[in-house]
Amino acid sequence: MEGANMANAMTDKTVKTFLDELASNAPAPGGGSVAALSGALGAGLISMVCNLTLGKPKYAAVENDIAALVKKSESLRKELANLLEEDVQAYTILNTTMKMPKDTDEQKTVRAKAMDKALKAATDVPMRVAEACVNVMALCPEATAKGNSNAVSDVGVGILMAEAGLRSAALNVLINLKIVKDEKFVSDNRKKLDNLLSGKPALRDEIYNLVVTKL
Amino acid sequence: MEGANMANAMTDKTVKTFLDELASNAPAPGGGSVAALSGALGAGLISMVCNLTLGKPKYAAVENDIAALVKKSESLRKELANLLEEDVQAYTILNTTMKMPKDTDEQKTVRAKAMDKALKAATDVPMRVAEACVNVMALCPEATAKGNSNAVSDVGVGILMAEAGLRSAALNVLINLKIVKDEKFVSDNRKKLDNLLSGKPALRDEIYNLVVTKL
Repeated sequence: MEGANMANAMTDKTVKTFLDELASNAPAPGGGSVAALSGALGAGLISMVCNLTLGKPKYAAVENDIAALVKKSESLRKELANLLEEDVQAYTILNTTMKMPKDTDEQKTVRAKAMDKALKAATDVPMRVAEACVNVMALCPEATAKGNSNAVSDVGVGILMAEAGLRSAALNVLINLKIVKDEKFVSDNRKKLDNLLSGKPALRDEIYNLVVTKL
Repeated sequence: MEGANMANAMTDKTVKTFLDELASNAPAPGGGSVAALSGALGAGLISMVCNLTLGKPKYAAVENDIAALVKKSESLRKELANLLEEDVQAYTILNTTMKMPKDTDEQKTVRAKAMDKALKAATDVPMRVAEACVNVMALCPEATAKGNSNAVSDVGVGILMAEAGLRSAALNVLINLKIVKDEKFVSDNRKKLDNLLSGKPALRDEIYNLVVTKL
């Protein structure tokens, strides 16, 4: 299931099929894919607000700032769409590894090593989703201040999606860390995750409330 | 742009195309569509957790409850996917109506009447999205308590998506109400929205924190 053929397996599906497969008992897509998608939707909305601002005489003074902003949001949108695919791949490998035989001591050793590797990879992907979502959130104050005021509600939706993506990714990091045996890996990743989550619900509510006052 | 041909216009696009068009300066999809999609993703995750529970001997005691739960989540998922399409249609009509001529008094009268109708329709859709998201959130406590414990993080992601969908829909209701002239319609809808929003961030955090303790 790895490699070039899988590259766009999920994002090449229709929205309808994605939702149908999500709702099914198939191993993927699941919450990890939704976390990445949520972040990508947030980044896409920031890009949209920028694209509705660029070239408008009323916003000529902030043209360069908005051009710089949309570069960042587009880069994050692509990163998050790729992470959606990577999450499915990592989860598929983990799922296959879990089914490896563990009858003999040798099998147990081989399986334990493979599980360690697969679990760390399956933790790494949502951690990168969490980081990218934090980076999307960081674009929202400037988008609210300088973006087309007719689209200010879309910045609000953008930060809601990015923050939901961040905390969704966090749940997927935690569910994997629960069974990782390498204690240093667990404590390092918990610390990293705590730092990413710190202050983000407050930032979300600050921007959301600011957007509401502008409506 | 109305009618059967538009029925699945958005959800028949690939996830990649949906994200590309979201990020562009095209009038749709925008924040309203993302609100409905976020709710549908939340509902889909609750369905997934139910489908990973049904038929498992370990969960035989809750089989009937879970069967009833997945009926509700699937109904809400379909409703929210339809609302995604309806939002695009309502927004497209509103966008066209805004461009109607307003040079003569007669044109002004015709346009004002059309704007009133289009704005009320464009308010009604996100209000129904908000209601459906609240209904998705209401399924989460039971899904957390009775669903397959291996998928508990997916209930957590589900409630995050449903609550982000609710507040995203709220922003889309408010941006339209801002320019509706019918004062009774505005105050009735503000009241309805306040009721829908009331207590929901607390419910989201309660379920999220409960899920974290189970990881």
